[in-house]
Amino acid sequence: MSSSATDSPISPPAPSRPAPVHAPMTQFGRVEGDLLVGQQPLRRLAARVGQTPFYAYDRDLLRARVAQLRQTLPPEIKLHYAMKANPMPALVGLMAGLVDGIDVASAGELKVALDAGADPAEISFAGPGKRDIELNQAVAAGVLVNVESARELPVLAAASARLGLPARVAVRVNPDFELKGSGMKMGGGPKQFGVDAEEVPALLQEIGRLGLAFEGFHLFAGSQNLRAESICEAQQKSYELALRLAAHAPSPVKFLNLGGGFGIPYFPGEAALDLGPIAANLATLVQRAAQDLPSASLVIELGRYFVGEAGVYVTRVVDRKVSRGQVYLVTDGGLNHHLSASGNFGQVIRKNYPVTIVADRAVAAGAESASLELASVVGPLCTPLDLLADRMQLPPAEIGDLVVVFQSGAYGASASPAGFLSQPMFVEVLV
Amino acid sequence: MSSSATDSPISPPAPSRPAPVHAPMTQFGRVEGDLLVGQQPLRRLAARVGQTPFYAYDRDLLRARVAQLRQTLPPEIKLHYAMKANPMPALVGLMAGLVDGIDVASAGELKVALDAGADPAEISFAGPGKRDIELNQAVAAGVLVNVESARELPVLAAASARLGLPARVAVRVNPDFELKGSGMKMGGGPKQFGVDAEEVPALLQEIGRLGLAFEGFHLFAGSQNLRAESICEAQQKSYELALRLAAHAPSPVKFLNLGGGFGIPYFPGEAALDLGPIAANLATLVQRAAQDLPSASLVIELGRYFVGEAGVYVTRVVDRKVSRGQVYLVTDGGLNHHLSASGNFGQVIRKNYPVTIVADRAVAAGAESASLELASVVGPLCTPLDLLADRMQLPPAEIGDLVVVFQSGAYGASASPAGFLSQPMFVEVLV
Repeated sequence: MSSSATDSPISPPAPSRPAPVHAPMTQFGRVEGDLLVGQQPLRRLAARVGQTPFYAYDRDLLRARVAQLRQTLPPEIKLHYAMKANPMPALVGLMAGLVDGIDVASAGELKVALDAGADPAEISFAGPGKRDIELNQAVAAGVLVNVESARELPVLAAASARLGLPARVAVRVNPDFELKGSGMKMGGGPKQFGVDAEEVPALLQEIGRLGLAFEGFHLFAGSQNLRAESICEAQQKSYELALRLAAHAPSPVKFLNLGGGFGIPYFPGEAALDLGPIAANLATLVQRAAQDLPSASLVIELGRYFVGEAGVYVTRVVDRKVSRGQVYLVTDGGLNHHLSASGNFGQVIRKNYPVTIVADRAVAAGAESASLELASVVGPLCTPLDLLADRMQLPPAEIGDLVVVFQSGAYGASASPAGFLSQPMFVEVLV
Repeated sequence: MSSSATDSPISPPAPSRPAPVHAPMTQFGRVEGDLLVGQQPLRRLAARVGQTPFYAYDRDLLRARVAQLRQTLPPEIKLHYAMKANPMPALVGLMAGLVDGIDVASAGELKVALDAGADPAEISFAGPGKRDIELNQAVAAGVLVNVESARELPVLAAASARLGLPARVAVRVNPDFELKGSGMKMGGGPKQFGVDAEEVPALLQEIGRLGLAFEGFHLFAGSQNLRAESICEAQQKSYELALRLAAHAPSPVKFLNLGGGFGIPYFPGEAALDLGPIAANLATLVQRAAQDLPSASLVIELGRYFVGEAGVYVTRVVDRKVSRGQVYLVTDGGLNHHLSASGNFGQVIRKNYPVTIVADRAVAAGAESASLELASVVGPLCTPLDLLADRMQLPPAEIGDLVVVFQSGAYGASASPAGFLSQPMFVEVLV
């Protein structure tokens, strides 16, 4: 790979820079070589679940994350959970009791949110391809629709007339800027999301003409961002854009969703997001909004940031192979359950998630070794894509031991091709 | 993008090379702007299915592909279907009646193959992480196990003793070469697949010692290759490696699986594989095997090549948006159903699958336009990854029209995160 430096006798030796490492996964306690998930040793939890692979989500960590945001951000800021990150019904039920609202992305998610007891008044529905029946369902449920296209307006008006219910709408705006340094850009330039900012005044006029119940704006510039200053800039620009657009609104703005984009550290060299500057920035916006948009609630919509770090994916070593000097831990789960960790979901260059080993065997007292070995973790599928860890330094593992993939609470279970190669299904538990 | 040539007043104009185009998708007939799938106009088929999105697989094309291989390749070559490419039960049932054997990659696939009526004598089971229960199931079913690790041997011996049945085994070899120009390399260097060639003699001795029913070898150097000469080279090297290893076998080789790797054209600039040189090469190997390994059947194992071109994914335009001059066709399906076409399954650089539009509306006679427009096809998910066609020249489409993604018969439905964002499920039909 980097052989050029050693090939050339002239080049000075490269400065020895330590390789980037994963942020420490300290959210889970450790006891005697085991990991505490939901306050239970993982070995015991695996026995309770009765099978591997499984996902486990830690209630305390979910509660702690919400509490941390409540404590850090201005109290006026409303927190919405974007359940696309993790739609497990029990988890959505827990989150519904902790946050101020749920954002859904389909009628399927709407059903889960309603079943979970979320208040329809605090549910919003976004998505670029809402089918007519979904718009009808949203009006019937009484939730807020984030309109992404002029096409949705007559459908909503018809549903409203048919059902004798107001069609509550906000406008999802495709801003004229993007979130810098974002894992996924979702605004700026041409996009399938939202209505181009310059087209919004005409749309607002049409909303007024049709008599829809206008409530506000939704802006979402990007996701998985670890740079606080980029998030602050996007929030500020979103606020200012919304303020300009509010001048064209048929009624006062009651709802202003400034999006999310808060990232979590997945890969070596990444560090946790600094909430401090974001809190300060939001405090300024809250103050400005009290003057500019006195009826408006400011909303932050987060998915991954709420749930990502609270979850682990746990799979078991089925075989330990050494092929031409390289150690392979072959597990009973892989990309079919956790596509993101395999590097096949939006990553251009594959990088390792943080991974560790929990021995599922009696370890003689004092026999625990601090030594690590270089090993790759692969799944059971007949494809080289099925890779959970590529040559990582890991505690030595034997057949039967547990492989833990951290940062797996978001875009794991639901974002994976579970039927691929007809392997057994994973289980999800909230503990 | 390629602005450098125009920026510099000195550079000569770049030679005008036409952009690469997709291979023509002539396997489906066309009539009056519609596409014939299973001899039915797609508009009618969509009405019969009763929903979009759906996958449709064409029986005649599946039959024709098998017949073409039978006609081209030497009659002694046995054809196995690797059902991981498409495990739809009805399709596996059809294929089981056409080919000489089925390759399964899990106990789940084994069940489908047995349900489909495949002869257990002609089923083989490969996979790097077979669980103990799966090895037991394989012995009970009487199928051939492609052993990938020394760990499997005692488990198979115990199952054989317990069940009073022979454990039929072949050795999957990790060769000391790889398939050049392959979409996915599955042999050469350290690998999780198979047993390193240099370790095989010891494994064969152990197979003899344990009294397992040895049948032969399985070699698989890579997949999705469009260069006949690379495939010929891999087959020849595989044959020669197997011959060397056969000297260590406890009994004569009855089964020699030379792998597959036959690719199909997905992306602009790719052309169909030329079977001619492969047929000639296999004829030579068949002749040699008659001398060297007189008891052996030579097997070619194909998945994608059998089924990939026979399938289409069909989704419907829900919205047509123009954002800052760019046309977006928003459909009711996307990466949740067809991850590969979105570019998120093993592709480093995203490229477009071949895509077309079928108008699902009355088109006035003579009003059909030959003109194309630049459009992107996106799905309904709230993620920029949900992209089925990135700025392609397509027939102009309206809401309600059908978007057809070709080359979708393999690694489509089963390799996609169908639950993502809780969108409605697709349907699969064999027509």
